[in-house]
Amino acid sequence: MKGRKFTEKERQILADIIIHRRTEFGRNFTSQEIPDTVIETLLSAALHAPSVGFSQPWEFVIIRDSLIKAKVKASFMRENQKAKEIFKNRPFYNQILLEGITTAPVNIAVFYKPSPHPVVGQTSMDKFGPYSVCLAIQNLWLMARAENIGLGWVSILDEEEVKTILNAPRENELIAYLCIGYVTEFTERPLLETLNWEKRKLKETVIYCDNYDHQRELIG
Amino acid sequence: MKGRKFTEKERQILADIIIHRRTEFGRNFTSQEIPDTVIETLLSAALHAPSVGFSQPWEFVIIRDSLIKAKVKASFMRENQKAKEIFKNRPFYNQILLEGITTAPVNIAVFYKPSPHPVVGQTSMDKFGPYSVCLAIQNLWLMARAENIGLGWVSILDEEEVKTILNAPRENELIAYLCIGYVTEFTERPLLETLNWEKRKLKETVIYCDNYDHQRELIG
Repeated sequence: MKGRKFTEKERQILADIIIHRRTEFGRNFTSQEIPDTVIETLLSAALHAPSVGFSQPWEFVIIRDSLIKAKVKASFMRENQKAKEIFKNRPFYNQILLEGITTAPVNIAVFYKPSPHPVVGQTSMDKFGPYSVCLAIQNLWLMARAENIGLGWVSILDEEEVKTILNAPRENELIAYLCIGYVTEFTERPLLETLNWEKRKLKETVIYCDNYDHQRELIG
Repeated sequence: MKGRKFTEKERQILADIIIHRRTEFGRNFTSQEIPDTVIETLLSAALHAPSVGFSQPWEFVIIRDSLIKAKVKASFMRENQKAKEIFKNRPFYNQILLEGITTAPVNIAVFYKPSPHPVVGQTSMDKFGPYSVCLAIQNLWLMARAENIGLGWVSILDEEEVKTILNAPRENELIAYLCIGYVTEFTERPLLETLNWEKRKLKETVIYCDNYDHQRELIG
């Protein structure tokens, strides 16, 4: 095989990073600044993600300005009121801190920028543009964990409001609003699992063999 | 900080895996079988991805059956006819092999399974369900690269046809159709970059500071 060959030991490090990655809900951020060089490392990981037709349809806004953060937080507060109504039968919802917008030193808004010309691989289903941006976000997330930096993805937002706050081009689509910063702790398990809000699914319930008629027998 | 602390050397290995990951377009697959233990490693990476509200809304169909592959390939052929029409002014399109469905020993169809109840973080924008599945796919893709296994994402397909072929539940959404296998080569650069079909974007053109009024000055 031509190309860089990875070893069992190197695979184990990737597995470790994947397994120890967490969603930071906002409780554990410290105020320690993230150096620009580290932000570059995170962005570099994102920019080397795969994208449909090598279209690289991503744009990143690195936010440190507290006034902008405050406006985004206000949008979160409004949207979360609606969510509280939806979860009114699970009052525990109110006790979960769901964002670290103003406590994280850095926020990153990630956008999908549609291509002005047809893209190889995007002709049958347009959604692969936004999906490519998600792949970049996961690269960034894993690199953040490797840098021992916590990351939370805030999804309880009004997309149009955030676009207005950031003066985003009309055609852009908000894919993610990320809060990042050093943390006091990476918990052993995901918070919503610890709180017993959701259970981890059994592997055998989500894996099929050849088609949906055959649930897969797992080994090991 | 509580939790696993990663070192500079470990970060470098992650960066190496990210940088050396490629999209395999189908030319380089070998017929070497992928052991079940390796498939488990790939799936385990996927299953440890983040997901909105810890909803884990993913399902995987591991396909080795050549009849099923042939049916999916036929769907690709039909869809690619439409794409050829779109790119008729770039006749070079016809020369790019865009899939390895029947040459790859294993295909994996990845689906989004909507939750029957409201999901934390998915109340304002429903799209975070499918996006979570994309994060799982990137974990799987990086682990495949660490296993020295090539992966291609076939997106020129008719979603409803693929769902019918795989007997997928009506509510499921096809997120990705992956071709995976050992390869003769991981190329130094992405194929579409080498072919000069698309250029790598300059970092400074996709990164902004605080809002879209300020393009970011980059360091280093």
